[in-house]
Amino acid sequence: MSSLDPPYKAIATRKKAKQNALIPPQWRITVPHPAPLSVISFPHRSYILTPLELEITSQHDATSLAAAIGSRTYTAHAVALAFCKRAAIAHQLTNCLTEIFFDDALARAKFLDEEYARTGKTLGPLHGVPVSLKDTFKVRGYDASIGIASLAENPAQENSLLVDVLLQQGAVLYCKTNVPQTLMALDSDNNVFGRVLNPHNRRVTAGGSTGGEGALVALRGSVLGVGTDVGGSIRIPAMCNGVYGVKPSRGRVPFARQETGSRPGGAGIALNASAGPIAASLRDCELFLATVAGARSWERDPEVVYGGWEEQGTAGQETKLLVGVLWSDGVIQPLPPVKKVLDETVQMLRSEGIEVVELHAPALKECPSLVDKFYRMGGANYMFDLLEKTGEPLTEWLGPRLKRGKIIKMGGLVAIHAQKEALEAEMLKIWTDAKGRQIDAFICPVAPHPVPPIDRWNSVGYTSSFVLLDYPAGTLPVREFKEEDLHDEWTDDSEPLGSWDEYNRTLWDKNSIDRRVYLNTPLSIQVVAPRLQERRLLQAMSIIDDVVKRRVDIPHARL
Amino acid sequence: MSSLDPPYKAIATRKKAKQNALIPPQWRITVPHPAPLSVISFPHRSYILTPLELEITSQHDATSLAAAIGSRTYTAHAVALAFCKRAAIAHQLTNCLTEIFFDDALARAKFLDEEYARTGKTLGPLHGVPVSLKDTFKVRGYDASIGIASLAENPAQENSLLVDVLLQQGAVLYCKTNVPQTLMALDSDNNVFGRVLNPHNRRVTAGGSTGGEGALVALRGSVLGVGTDVGGSIRIPAMCNGVYGVKPSRGRVPFARQETGSRPGGAGIALNASAGPIAASLRDCELFLATVAGARSWERDPEVVYGGWEEQGTAGQETKLLVGVLWSDGVIQPLPPVKKVLDETVQMLRSEGIEVVELHAPALKECPSLVDKFYRMGGANYMFDLLEKTGEPLTEWLGPRLKRGKIIKMGGLVAIHAQKEALEAEMLKIWTDAKGRQIDAFICPVAPHPVPPIDRWNSVGYTSSFVLLDYPAGTLPVREFKEEDLHDEWTDDSEPLGSWDEYNRTLWDKNSIDRRVYLNTPLSIQVVAPRLQERRLLQAMSIIDDVVKRRVDIPHARL
Repeated sequence: MSSLDPPYKAIATRKKAKQNALIPPQWRITVPHPAPLSVISFPHRSYILTPLELEITSQHDATSLAAAIGSRTYTAHAVALAFCKRAAIAHQLTNCLTEIFFDDALARAKFLDEEYARTGKTLGPLHGVPVSLKDTFKVRGYDASIGIASLAENPAQENSLLVDVLLQQGAVLYCKTNVPQTLMALDSDNNVFGRVLNPHNRRVTAGGSTGGEGALVALRGSVLGVGTDVGGSIRIPAMCNGVYGVKPSRGRVPFARQETGSRPGGAGIALNASAGPIAASLRDCELFLATVAGARSWERDPEVVYGGWEEQGTAGQETKLLVGVLWSDGVIQPLPPVKKVLDETVQMLRSEGIEVVELHAPALKECPSLVDKFYRMGGANYMFDLLEKTGEPLTEWLGPRLKRGKIIKMGGLVAIHAQKEALEAEMLKIWTDAKGRQIDAFICPVAPHPVPPIDRWNSVGYTSSFVLLDYPAGTLPVREFKEEDLHDEWTDDSEPLGSWDEYNRTLWDKNSIDRRVYLNTPLSIQVVAPRLQERRLLQAMSIIDDVVKRRVDIPHARL
Repeated sequence: MSSLDPPYKAIATRKKAKQNALIPPQWRITVPHPAPLSVISFPHRSYILTPLELEITSQHDATSLAAAIGSRTYTAHAVALAFCKRAAIAHQLTNCLTEIFFDDALARAKFLDEEYARTGKTLGPLHGVPVSLKDTFKVRGYDASIGIASLAENPAQENSLLVDVLLQQGAVLYCKTNVPQTLMALDSDNNVFGRVLNPHNRRVTAGGSTGGEGALVALRGSVLGVGTDVGGSIRIPAMCNGVYGVKPSRGRVPFARQETGSRPGGAGIALNASAGPIAASLRDCELFLATVAGARSWERDPEVVYGGWEEQGTAGQETKLLVGVLWSDGVIQPLPPVKKVLDETVQMLRSEGIEVVELHAPALKECPSLVDKFYRMGGANYMFDLLEKTGEPLTEWLGPRLKRGKIIKMGGLVAIHAQKEALEAEMLKIWTDAKGRQIDAFICPVAPHPVPPIDRWNSVGYTSSFVLLDYPAGTLPVREFKEEDLHDEWTDDSEPLGSWDEYNRTLWDKNSIDRRVYLNTPLSIQVVAPRLQERRLLQAMSIIDDVVKRRVDIPHARL
């Protein structure tokens, strides 16, 4: 580096060196060169994990690990060690980690084992369960730099509230995971830590902004991670990596004391991000949400809405599950394989006797552009100030897309809130079907395209609309993209709905893309429930997941 | 009127004439001249109500009326007629009504009786119960002018959502009630309808902004009314008139489609008003809240938070009720009679074995000035525009207090939201006592003074702080101000805490007030619970109310 280099470069170099030093030599792997397209089975072949460690990390989810530790089948220490090792491997393959605190984790696991031996009681439902965290969460003594050099080398003085909650429930924290610069991009790439790769296929995106978490869980370097979502940042990486992810309504999971690269007070007038699980199984998403609800976090965070897990709704009130299907948001037509996997799901549900009704939600097409106005209201100036402190440039993808903007004026702010209120009221109608029955949940695409090549994600409208509307929503992996999916063509020859739709078609047009890039990448659907009814969502997802699992070979189940 | 008169005068004259014409000649009373200080027992002596109508209106609350109609003791029509008559009397005594629709009510009651006879089923828990409404609520075909001439003579095209809910649950709507000009004053006085008088004592205020409702319920022209509260507008008139009133957290009771004299969209960035009951009994407040929760209004109003009545908290989780007491907000010291009635309540609770712990909430003193910044953020320009349309001046009280202001800038808006978040977090700590136990609810003054003379209300800090913090809070009448209360003096001679405190002392200083004005006015306390735990609040209030009722002669119980 020359002395003319902007300061961020030296910071990034020091950060990466320090990170690298935290991976013990005996856990180092040699990544083949050229690397294989998929590294998903690499941990099995690395000889770093013992057979027991492979069993712990491959054949369990958080729910069964908690049970196995409770029944003394495994010690918390053995479980922590296995996941530290596997996370180290996952990181070397995909660059998914930011902060590493394996030593703390092992000491904590030892303490938990001793307490359990001494008292015969577990600390809580997560006793000994390793939980990974998006870098936005603060863990005392470690950076929460979110990939911004000016925020690095400044260890957190306190834990995020959720971190305290997880620790009190017995969790073992061992690493934090990589994010996109500014948190407002769909590829998790930044100047400090670099880019997260997709373990299924290094040519497609790992998604963002909880991208590191997605890759880590896909490689089972974690079975339960925590992300945040203000546009799709949990659901998109869950889709890209073929795992489960749930964005709750705001106020369900404590969000306090994170590093989000924004000023305090903005949350009161903007769209609010939610924290939620990214996990290897759906029941682990429920374990996370039920445990957090059971911790009565509303007693510690004023933004948390009162209500235990039993008080978060029920699916199937009218005897049997009633599912809606939403084929399109009216802005971007889903590409043939996306439509196909949704159609397959509808067919599977119907063949199991579950009624599926078609939803018409014309107001939905107003949502994405309104969301964009909310995103832009602060003019991104706070973030630019953070970057400029160390001369840090925007990433190649963000460069042409993000500029310092004018802060919205009060008249404009009131107008977009009025528009939001009107859309909320209009959209509420979709939950009642033509016969006057309440729909339990609806399914729709997570995105209008399959997992796209790096830096080519299109719109976030299919996920961000449910942030605007504050509906809990989750990603449910259905199957892999297969050879025969390559040949699906548009069944109608309608004109593009607009420029977003036009761009979207380039992701399927043989003249602009080699469709084979999608081979073996995960295809998922999104499941959505009414506001603040997370249990209703999870119950509906569970029924749908059971049907899908009985019918298809699911990527994440192969390990 | 001269042709030079501003247009609002002719509108007000027409409105009052039309209103007057809706009171049948046989229900007209002659108010003695000079009027007695208290008119509270006047309906008994008017000979307009039959003995049965006196029984219906005096010896029942909404809960027992619903039961009596259900058991066919009374018809809904007989009940409606009794309350229409008594409301007409109350209005002639206190000027408490705005819109009158007695004919509609009687037709509706007849319909309900017929339906019940035909089907043997009631429409809902409010079948046949007369419910009065603050003028802000829209009832199709009637004005919702909120006392502003430019909004008058413009019948609502649709019902407020809560009106639809109440009708579906069987309620009979028969009148709307008077409010202050701009809704932002504590005396319910405006240029269209004039001033509401306090039936207990015409020299003291009837309170506001739900002042007409307070006076109407005190005279039992209604047993169950609905108000709104963004600073104390339910709790203050409840205190002034010696009845019960509950302000829920925002999102518990549908607020949609009211006339509030403000622009749409503002609610997304401002403090939000809540709708709630003003009632003759505490169990009627519960009947209202439980009925609204049971109506699953979250399926029709996106602002309504999910959660049935059973899902709104429980008091006394730790075996027995744990009550906090907050003696002062740190801004204004309560005057001796206010402190005394709070102290009496503490003694009564303790003597019944209920533990009461002292709360220290230093952050509370920051709340009132922050609330004021929220109130002023829109500059009141929309309201001034409405007034100027017809040349309407501000009332005498508002004149020096309300001016067109600058709309807040974004930086300022973000700053006050940040301050709000910090105060919410700080205040949350008060709910845990020194032993780590959760306090079920706390008691504190409704205001730092007894019910003051007309137009002399001091600060709303004791009520508005719990709007800022979004805590559900209710007014509980304890007893009347008695002769011996006249002689209570300050027990310490500390300096005033500031200008608000200084003004407050003039309301007890013999040099500036004749304390005898307070004689026979109601003394109340406020009960407060954590956010979104309305059932916890009502359970705590009910236990406290039972203790208080056993010990003292309560004004509202005399009738």
